[in-house]
Amino acid sequence: MALTIGIIGAGRIGKLHADNLRLIPQIRIKSVSDIATDHLKAWAIEKQIEVLTTEYQEILNDPEIEAVFICSPTNTHAAIIKEAAAAKKHIFCEKPVSFTVEETEEALAAVEKAGVKLQVGFNRRFDPNFRKVRQLVQDGEIGTPHMLRITSRDPQPPGVEYIKSSGGLFMDMTIHDFDMARYVMGSEVTEVSAYGTVLVDPVIGEAGDIDTAVISLKFANGALGVIENSRRAAYGYDQRLEVFGDRGAANVDNNRATNVEVSTVNHVAKEKPLYFFLERYTQAYIDEVTEFVSFIMNNQDVSCTGFDGLQAERIARAAKQSLETGLPVKLNQASPAAAN
Amino acid sequence: MALTIGIIGAGRIGKLHADNLRLIPQIRIKSVSDIATDHLKAWAIEKQIEVLTTEYQEILNDPEIEAVFICSPTNTHAAIIKEAAAAKKHIFCEKPVSFTVEETEEALAAVEKAGVKLQVGFNRRFDPNFRKVRQLVQDGEIGTPHMLRITSRDPQPPGVEYIKSSGGLFMDMTIHDFDMARYVMGSEVTEVSAYGTVLVDPVIGEAGDIDTAVISLKFANGALGVIENSRRAAYGYDQRLEVFGDRGAANVDNNRATNVEVSTVNHVAKEKPLYFFLERYTQAYIDEVTEFVSFIMNNQDVSCTGFDGLQAERIARAAKQSLETGLPVKLNQASPAAAN
Amino acid sequence: MALTIGIIGAGRIGKLHADNLRLIPQIRIKSVSDIATDHLKAWAIEKQIEVLTTEYQEILNDPEIEAVFICSPTNTHAAIIKEAAAAKKHIFCEKPVSFTVEETEEALAAVEKAGVKLQVGFNRRFDPNFRKVRQLVQDGEIGTPHMLRITSRDPQPPGVEYIKSSGGLFMDMTIHDFDMARYVMGSEVTEVSAYGTVLVDPVIGEAGDIDTAVISLKFANGALGVIENSRRAAYGYDQRLEVFGDRGAANVDNNRATNVEVSTVNHVAKEKPLYFFLERYTQAYIDEVTEFVSFIMNNQDVSCTGFDGLQAERIARAAKQSLETGLPVKLNQASPAAAN
Amino acid sequence: MALTIGIIGAGRIGKLHADNLRLIPQIRIKSVSDIATDHLKAWAIEKQIEVLTTEYQEILNDPEIEAVFICSPTNTHAAIIKEAAAAKKHIFCEKPVSFTVEETEEALAAVEKAGVKLQVGFNRRFDPNFRKVRQLVQDGEIGTPHMLRITSRDPQPPGVEYIKSSGGLFMDMTIHDFDMARYVMGSEVTEVSAYGTVLVDPVIGEAGDIDTAVISLKFANGALGVIENSRRAAYGYDQRLEVFGDRGAANVDNNRATNVEVSTVNHVAKEKPLYFFLERYTQAYIDEVTEFVSFIMNNQDVSCTGFDGLQAERIARAAKQSLETGLPVKLNQASPAAAN
Repeated sequence: MALTIGIIGAGRIGKLHADNLRLIPQIRIKSVSDIATDHLKAWAIEKQIEVLTTEYQEILNDPEIEAVFICSPTNTHAAIIKEAAAAKKHIFCEKPVSFTVEETEEALAAVEKAGVKLQVGFNRRFDPNFRKVRQLVQDGEIGTPHMLRITSRDPQPPGVEYIKSSGGLFMDMTIHDFDMARYVMGSEVTEVSAYGTVLVDPVIGEAGDIDTAVISLKFANGALGVIENSRRAAYGYDQRLEVFGDRGAANVDNNRATNVEVSTVNHVAKEKPLYFFLERYTQAYIDEVTEFVSFIMNNQDVSCTGFDGLQAERIARAAKQSLETGLPVKLNQASPAAAN
Repeated sequence: MALTIGIIGAGRIGKLHADNLRLIPQIRIKSVSDIATDHLKAWAIEKQIEVLTTEYQEILNDPEIEAVFICSPTNTHAAIIKEAAAAKKHIFCEKPVSFTVEETEEALAAVEKAGVKLQVGFNRRFDPNFRKVRQLVQDGEIGTPHMLRITSRDPQPPGVEYIKSSGGLFMDMTIHDFDMARYVMGSEVTEVSAYGTVLVDPVIGEAGDIDTAVISLKFANGALGVIENSRRAAYGYDQRLEVFGDRGAANVDNNRATNVEVSTVNHVAKEKPLYFFLERYTQAYIDEVTEFVSFIMNNQDVSCTGFDGLQAERIARAAKQSLETGLPVKLNQASPAAAN
Repeated sequence: MALTIGIIGAGRIGKLHADNLRLIPQIRIKSVSDIATDHLKAWAIEKQIEVLTTEYQEILNDPEIEAVFICSPTNTHAAIIKEAAAAKKHIFCEKPVSFTVEETEEALAAVEKAGVKLQVGFNRRFDPNFRKVRQLVQDGEIGTPHMLRITSRDPQPPGVEYIKSSGGLFMDMTIHDFDMARYVMGSEVTEVSAYGTVLVDPVIGEAGDIDTAVISLKFANGALGVIENSRRAAYGYDQRLEVFGDRGAANVDNNRATNVEVSTVNHVAKEKPLYFFLERYTQAYIDEVTEFVSFIMNNQDVSCTGFDGLQAERIARAAKQSLETGLPVKLNQASPAAAN
Repeated sequence: MALTIGIIGAGRIGKLHADNLRLIPQIRIKSVSDIATDHLKAWAIEKQIEVLTTEYQEILNDPEIEAVFICSPTNTHAAIIKEAAAAKKHIFCEKPVSFTVEETEEALAAVEKAGVKLQVGFNRRFDPNFRKVRQLVQDGEIGTPHMLRITSRDPQPPGVEYIKSSGGLFMDMTIHDFDMARYVMGSEVTEVSAYGTVLVDPVIGEAGDIDTAVISLKFANGALGVIENSRRAAYGYDQRLEVFGDRGAANVDNNRATNVEVSTVNHVAKEKPLYFFLERYTQAYIDEVTEFVSFIMNNQDVSCTGFDGLQAERIARAAKQSLETGLPVKLNQASPAAAN
């Protein structure tokens, strides 16, 4: 038994998924599309990719291909999802699904109509630390959740061109945290209140975005939450989390390359956190595509759905509105479905 | 050289201050007043206290007494401060100075007019952990501060009668965190946005208060902050803090009775945090009164002033208004003075 | 470019190496031998192994095969090394090379004469924690090493049948620690003094072995060392190490599956260490064979040699003699070569 | 009720005990003797000490004085103990009781004959960390003890003059660890095997002593142990301990002045250990004399006895013999009494 896959978009994340898919014996990566392919030829041979094309439609039209990975720029996601769904391909799509809730809703409708599966690329759900905290919460080990804190800081900001087309901090970066909030709490966000500012680099402000934020959350289960964001932490990628419940608290600290501790005349020092998402979430990225492949091949429901993508975008949109108005914003729960 | 002191109010905190003052050789605790004194007789003898009285005015009228500790209920603080100032006594007053900014302003005016010194009992400023973080910030060790987080949770809520007369969570409990925010950041709070709810005990809600809160802050220096509060943490008194700057971050963890770590078939466990403020801030309470005594005796300015008390109350009032209106509240900076 | 490999012995460790070799694109695992092969058929197909045989000589006689992995029982290692060397195969051999220094010396002589490469399976050298400590020592970050401590405890003892044929605690288990001592200190062991006893299970004593030991070491560079061993730690596989030098110390702690910390009414608990060598050294086992393959293909000297295997055995033999005589035992440095 | 005390020897440790005794309300420190007293006058006034004398016999002859603290040089301890016992004074004596087991035995015999109480100054027994580990062992929380490790390193060596009159590393420094071994394990040491060398400073070797040691122990209960010593740790006073039992392990880490952790572009750093014994054992020194005073006043047996002092000296002597002969040395258990 095997699964034949096509990858649309071979930038950093598309190539990462290809590498990880290669670790799964049953996978055939038949085709990869990108706007240019010359620079990909050696890589494609090494990865046993059979077809390189500049036309992603060639992938969608290939009857052998059963599932596609959409790793192209965000502003193309929704349209390609609709085409892929129409072509009856199962879909793995990078986050966010789109920049607008409406486009995402349209894409999800197309997916539902076609009866294909769609998994959204919230890789952090597959990190064993966060997964364990979710399990502790579900098992009642810390009682009823009262409070959530997510600390999420990048080691350095992206270039200003990326910033301009990113959809803004909340849609680009915090969207992971919004999804994580729903994931570990097992409850929907009902209200958001955002403080944001430019402290890292004025260029980011000139591009119309913020780089530092504190976002307060209310959850449907009555709990409160807060997310802390910065585009730049001097000490590296900061990915921590705490759920506080009435029977205890669960904390996730950063991962490090080694646990070596060095004592000198100055201090007792351990290593900085792993540098960035590729280092911190190496295994999570592998597990993410492994689960997708397994669920597709076994005709099971994927665990990180289009609805999850949509809900995170709704929170991001509300956060942006809160930032613009200076007021808390309630979310209209478009769907009664519980957080997955 | 010696300092003669009177203590007004001999409840838990008044007796604690007396015990700690006894550790300072130069101190004579001449008099203690309380609404009842019979139960205090044995204690007074042990502590070499010469006069027990039910009339605090007796203390204020005693020309030998140079300084008073006001440890009576909060609703009496402002009036006694005014009387003590008029009697030319130096004053150590427990927090908060009063329940209203106006009363506090009046009390401070009386203090200023009388030319006496007033120290407010923000004991946490004397904790070596927080003190070190403030120093790191001042020394630029973590660069320009961008973000502050204070986690402050009690091991259990006070009784409902206390809750009713406490002035509410923000004025009673969070006021320590509001002061800590100004202390470690070295910058005034300019805006506050509060989320609060009742998750610990419905009795607290029935008494008109909340027991769980997330409060976002803006600082005059452009930084953002967040305070997390709960009236009950199953694992004990949770007193942590993080300042994040553009060159790094400084973290305060909880203190424990021992650093013993036990590995068993189940887990690797360390002790819970020290139980509550008396255990966690034992040394801070000693240092607080030691510094007060030293500054009075050397005619120096105290380091935790009436203005600090006032500013914390202003933030508490703004937080309460934010909770009631559901909107962020800007602070009118009544005074241009910087945080001390 | 590729490397064709044969594996002699497909027990747990032989299969582990096969799995890890499969992750290296250039590797062809042509043949696997074992005393019985029926139970290996499905696995061999999955791993794309072409030949299954009960005669390891078939592997040695195959001119296509360039390198062999010797994963058969220890008492067969030396003889197979000699045959493999004669057949001009490069060799990866599990530890220990043999149960006697003399047999190992004979095997190494055969390897040298044949001009093939031999790597010994001291997998812990490839653990990033220990590797970093070695680097810190080499770089002088902790100054001149004065003292080494290795804590090495298994989660549970092997069965008594294994114990009987294991060569004893020092040759079977501590041999890893003896190699680690030379590896991180960069200096030869010159004297050993062993205390050993039976505290875990009397069955181990009845089988003529010990299960608990404290072994003191002297190094050629003047430093002292100590190894602590137990066949059973209730909390799991305990693999820690400290090098203490005149400018500081470097510590390796245990690795855990997650860094989640749970605070409850009882304590603040983190996870136990990873269970055993397969979990703790997953990546080390991969890196070990990856380096072997790379060094063979690039005609470089391997970094963990037959001499390293020999030296560890010499220390193990001296430790056993110390245990038996109750006296410290000096090592006769058969070779002037420095620890590698 | 009160206790009248005399202090013999007002060097660093004598003055420390005086300071700590001052914290106990019932204590009258009537007299202090030293070989010179001029430099002590201001201090004596501040501490309300009534008599300063160069003749310790004046203290022993004073019928008001009920208990004496012997804080003079070690070579005077035994003789003064005998005189003090004859004078019916209760005795607190600094460690070691003497430099020879025979002298100590004579002193203890005099104490027993006189029926006075004698407490030996093993201050570390009063550290809450070690105390907790002893309790865990006694309560069976980690099962039957199998192994003990004590890491004990000073931040810097004493001057060479002190070294010359110290009795050597084992009698001066390790003696604390020998006592700690008996204390936490609740079992006598039956054999000792010592490795020692000079790595810190050749001057120490020229003075006939060592500065670096690894000492293996066997206990009467069958457990093994190891003590690691250095006269100089670059990172400060290193006072750690681990007891490993069949149900788990208990670890003591170093104490630090604060728990602040600073993350920067280089690393994540915490503070060094507290500098030296005065900082690390501040509270232990207070608790030590507080317990002594309490036990004397309540006519209870002290918990750290002359026998404890004697046993530690026996182990130290055996360790020295082991170092000199290069052989393990068994202890002749002069007394069947169990470790206290």
